[in-house]
Parts: sequence; structure tokens; C-alpha cells
Amino acid sequence: MSASKESNTIFVGKKPLTNYVLACLTLFQNGTSGITVKARGRAISKAVDVAQILTKRFASEIAVGKINIDTEQMKSTETGAMNNVSSIEIHLGK
Amino acid sequence: MSASKESNTIFVGKKPLTNYVLACLTLFQNGTSGITVKARGRAISKAVDVAQILTKRFASEIAVGKINIDTEQMKSTETGAMNNVSSIEIHLGK
Repeated sequence: MSASKESNTIFVGKKPLTNYVLACLTLFQNGTSGITVKARGRAISKAVDVAQILTKRFASEIAVGKINIDTEQMKSTETGAMNNVSSIEIHLGK
Repeated sequence: MSASKESNTIFVGKKPLTNYVLACLTLFQNGTSGITVKARGRAISKAVDVAQILTKRFASEIAVGKINIDTEQMKSTETGAMNNVSSIEIHLGK
């Protein structure tokens, strides 16, 4: 659950879904009005789950805003080659 | 590669990525100006891959438009219980 330099960005990775939902809820309860949920590769589905669980189950005052998709270059840890990986940014706001 | 009733919707599922990219390219070459790429659950990542490969590698005149995420109720084939599944709709247009 790495919060990036911009403290209101949640980077979704391999941890359980609820960790990220809780991280978002905590940010909102600390007074943040907008959060960006980011993910790469297979974690993209999980990022969408986080946004949906948050807005539909926990906090109906939070709404999904703009969603961006992009491609990022990542170095493979196995082969060292550069791979293209899809990424998503989901903006959530009150 | 199921094209739904709306013939310009591509539903991304378990087939190889390239099948869906090709299906989109075919639709565009047949004169369609807009396509919706839909996916549920884990296939969401693949739908994003399809959109990215299509727009960045094959057809730079096609752009990603609005992206919607939602939750759908699906009946589990194993237990028969209703589950919530996240879904995505990616609009692609010339």
C-alpha cells in the first residue's frame, strides 16, 4: 500500500483488496477531497474493484471521476528487457 | 470474441489478446467510427491492453474516449450465489 510522493495517490499492487480500500477511506477521513488510484498490468482489475467497493459499499458520497489508461515501459526483472505494461488511473472525489 | 447485439461492442474474455485487437481492427476497417470494449472481473486488465495496443501500435488515428466502470451482479456457476463483479467499458473512436 504505497502512497506515492503525491500523498493522495494509492498504488494498487499485490496486497489484499481491503488494504487498499482502507487506505482510501483513511485518506478521505483525513480530509482529502480527491484521491487517485493507480495500477499496472494485472492489478488494473483490482484497482477497479477498489473504486467500486469504495463508492458502492462504503462511501456513497465518493464518486468515480475521470479514468485514464496509458502504457508504461517497465524493465523485466527476469530478462532485463523493456516491456510495455498498461496502466490505469482512477480519480475518486467527494 | 463475442460481438454483442450492438455490433460495435467487443466483449473481452479468456481468448488471446490478439483475437480482440484483430476484432476491433476489423470493425474499424468495415467503416465503424466507434467501438466499445467491455470486460468483467480479471479480464478488465486485458481490455485495457487491447485498447492500448490498438491505439499505440496499430492505429494511431484511433483514440481512447470515455471510460466507465461499474459493478454487475453475476450468478456463480459453482455455488449459485450472486456475486458482485466489476466491469469496464472503454470507448474507442476515430
